[in-house]
Amino acid sequence: MNRPMIRYVLGQVIFIEGALLLLPCLVSLIYQENEGLPYLCVAVCCTILGYINTKHKPENNMFYLKEGCIMTGLSWIVLSFIGAIPFYLTGEIPSFIDAWFETISGFTTTGSSILSNVEALSHTALFWRSFTHWVGGMGVLVFLLAVIPMSGGANINLMRAESPGPSVEKILPKVKHSAIVLYVIYGALTVFFIVVFFIAGMPLFDSFVLAFGSAGTGGFAIRNDSLTSYSALQQWLVTIAMISFGVNFNFYYLLLLKKFSKAFHMEEVRAYFGVIIFAILVITLNILPMYSGHTATALRDAAFQVGSIITTTGYGSANFDLWPTLSKLILVLLMFVGACAGSTGGGMKISRFIIMIKSVRKEIHSYAHPKSIEKINMDGKPISHEVLRSTNVYMITYVTIFVVSLLGVAAFENTDLVTSFTSVAATINNIGPGLELVGPTANFGWMHNTTKVILMFDMLAGRLELFPILIMLYPRIWKDAIHNRRRRRRVDCHDPLVHEDEMVETFPYHLR
Amino acid sequence: MNRPMIRYVLGQVIFIEGALLLLPCLVSLIYQENEGLPYLCVAVCCTILGYINTKHKPENNMFYLKEGCIMTGLSWIVLSFIGAIPFYLTGEIPSFIDAWFETISGFTTTGSSILSNVEALSHTALFWRSFTHWVGGMGVLVFLLAVIPMSGGANINLMRAESPGPSVEKILPKVKHSAIVLYVIYGALTVFFIVVFFIAGMPLFDSFVLAFGSAGTGGFAIRNDSLTSYSALQQWLVTIAMISFGVNFNFYYLLLLKKFSKAFHMEEVRAYFGVIIFAILVITLNILPMYSGHTATALRDAAFQVGSIITTTGYGSANFDLWPTLSKLILVLLMFVGACAGSTGGGMKISRFIIMIKSVRKEIHSYAHPKSIEKINMDGKPISHEVLRSTNVYMITYVTIFVVSLLGVAAFENTDLVTSFTSVAATINNIGPGLELVGPTANFGWMHNTTKVILMFDMLAGRLELFPILIMLYPRIWKDAIHNRRRRRRVDCHDPLVHEDEMVETFPYHLR
Repeated sequence: MNRPMIRYVLGQVIFIEGALLLLPCLVSLIYQENEGLPYLCVAVCCTILGYINTKHKPENNMFYLKEGCIMTGLSWIVLSFIGAIPFYLTGEIPSFIDAWFETISGFTTTGSSILSNVEALSHTALFWRSFTHWVGGMGVLVFLLAVIPMSGGANINLMRAESPGPSVEKILPKVKHSAIVLYVIYGALTVFFIVVFFIAGMPLFDSFVLAFGSAGTGGFAIRNDSLTSYSALQQWLVTIAMISFGVNFNFYYLLLLKKFSKAFHMEEVRAYFGVIIFAILVITLNILPMYSGHTATALRDAAFQVGSIITTTGYGSANFDLWPTLSKLILVLLMFVGACAGSTGGGMKISRFIIMIKSVRKEIHSYAHPKSIEKINMDGKPISHEVLRSTNVYMITYVTIFVVSLLGVAAFENTDLVTSFTSVAATINNIGPGLELVGPTANFGWMHNTTKVILMFDMLAGRLELFPILIMLYPRIWKDAIHNRRRRRRVDCHDPLVHEDEMVETFPYHLR
Repeated sequence: MNRPMIRYVLGQVIFIEGALLLLPCLVSLIYQENEGLPYLCVAVCCTILGYINTKHKPENNMFYLKEGCIMTGLSWIVLSFIGAIPFYLTGEIPSFIDAWFETISGFTTTGSSILSNVEALSHTALFWRSFTHWVGGMGVLVFLLAVIPMSGGANINLMRAESPGPSVEKILPKVKHSAIVLYVIYGALTVFFIVVFFIAGMPLFDSFVLAFGSAGTGGFAIRNDSLTSYSALQQWLVTIAMISFGVNFNFYYLLLLKKFSKAFHMEEVRAYFGVIIFAILVITLNILPMYSGHTATALRDAAFQVGSIITTTGYGSANFDLWPTLSKLILVLLMFVGACAGSTGGGMKISRFIIMIKSVRKEIHSYAHPKSIEKINMDGKPISHEVLRSTNVYMITYVTIFVVSLLGVAAFENTDLVTSFTSVAATINNIGPGLELVGPTANFGWMHNTTKVILMFDMLAGRLELFPILIMLYPRIWKDAIHNRRRRRRVDCHDPLVHEDEMVETFPYHLR
């Protein structure tokens, strides 16, 4: 294992976090709040720590998927740990576990909160909370890729480990360029929605934090009623913003290249909008009696909630826990469906479901025509055996983690089944609110610390699509690491430098 | 498609059902009940109908997996349709949909009832209800295989379509002999438990019906409180009976052959007992406070409920709907786990979970050692790629059917989420009771007819492991059937006769 490289990348991550923490300091200056000081202290410490660890660039900057996963997992744990310190130091969140839960919920773009009264927080804290969504939405390591030079296939292994979806299609042949393009689209869309929200009459601060939350598909709001008290127009605009960030970013890139036909024929994007429209229609009809004929309001609430849940944002404009069973069930199912691969959203991703449904259809077809050899296609291209296999393994792993977490939650909280089930569903899918005791008007603050740790694990596992977090629990990885280190000391062997495309072939174990 | 053969097999099934219906007639004679007459009429009609359809044995008695599936699906629908007629004719179940629901629940060994007062039924009806469990447990077509001569690989295709588990391991090289051995073990074990129950002080009638229910892992009881009012000894004996019939029958065959070491090293059987012991221990500890220190009672109730749910029998000796969340959750999870493959139990089967967990472990291992090519083994033998693939496809199909049914149930019944979820879980896994409104002390009678039809579909799909029922909804199968019929008329082509082993190779699409 290339430990110097892991240390180097972690150093870079800490350094960047130091820089990011200066933004809430700026906010505290603007609003003349005292809470800025702890943020500044942490920022300074990060800069020093980051500098020490990145002073010497390792000679061998090559690493494999295993190291990519460990690097990613560690980065996210360190990132959220450091991000939690200011909340704790300012005393705004008195328990450190709570502060860490809140920060993991922020970076993983979950939006589950332990706070019962967010309006009591300073602007500084509110800004930092929402800004973590924005940072976590696209990923810190993707950002790193755009700025640090790395050799060969190293960077594709990092990108695979961090970005959501069954397979990373590089937009451009060079990973570095892909990362830059992604960040440019992401930044431009965010700025666009900040401006739009502001024009629609939102206070500037609200425009910023709600744009960050929608962009990262996070869900931390700054009012206790989430988005219920915003105007109808503002709610519709946030709905559009959320749904836009759940679209595969390749779609926007194709639009930029003016490849409109190719963009609008992307199967995943079509299915995504199909599911959204269908869910909105069914829910609107289902809740209409509760709205005593106010179709426009019912439609707005349905659209907002569907957009919020399928993109895994988690803002609320209505207490859907009071809706009829069918509507609640559809929302719970949408929690699992999630957004498109290659977006900032969580869940299991639309494309995985397309692949799975196609493989069932193929199986049934093979009964009728046993000798036909049919390939499963996506956007006209056949899906490789490896992607199929990894989709299956992903699903099994997902169910396993889900069930184990559910048992853990039930062991520590003797609440109803719906609360236990949706608290795991809302965190592993990075949604935010669940139903009943963790419903849209409730929070996670009342839970045991052990339950919180389980849900923190789920949020990280969900955001990083299971393996980068799971692999850290696999003892052999560490045994091998120690063993390799000893061997390396003796013969000083270096990992061979492999060309990027060869790497992809050598490691066909797509993460997602 | 070989339509004459399908008609012939259906005729045989109807003929056998006619013979089976004579047993409740006998019961009505013993208890001098008038309800026997409708059973006799139906039996006579079946004999005539069966005779007409089996008079001419088709020349070409070869068929493929597709026909095996259709034959199996149709047989089960016809079997339960005819079985429901006496309930309706005697007026004991006044609605035909209800009668059909009850019979499907019987044959599929589910045990979900629409009756609120089973004690009001005649002995004749009670006997027939429980006897359907016994018939459905091992399967009617497996019985047919033991008695009708069929050529080549035809019979393996039928057996695959009907028996539970990821892959049919033929116990003996000849399918016919395997079928006979299975039925002999099944019959002998049933007789053994009838005797044991009787010695333990149960009335003879109760010994019969409860042995049938345990053998088929059915769950229809003959008292309104299910098994709560039986003595502690009797409850323990029923627990042992249920758990015995959830064991892979290969285990008993190996015992008969005195291959003890091989039998006790069967991974599936070990995992099955491991899960049972673990679940009993956790639940006993969890419910102990409710039993104010009566450890023996708590242990008995935990063991009974765990045995009843994991084997998908569904008898109840305690209202587990009142238990703490952790215990309820474990029982709900056991509903999905199910019994061993090659047993009479339902659910997803232990062996599928073993395969799935092993494939995840292999995936994580491959991160540490990308170049290692590790095979997944079961009982020391490598699992073929096809079994792995079909396990994955099974799971995806299962989830799809589950979700669609859940949406259907929620659309027609505006009850709580737990009721909707467990009503589907209890039927598709062939358990019987769920939680809340379909809990151990409740029944399914209050539901809409449409919901009942959805659950009837789920029971059949669950018992036949999805594909034989699903394939009947696939339009192309029927289109091809019509097309082939036209072609056959022109050239009178016969399907080629293939040797059994070749068939297995030509049709590697294992059903389960």
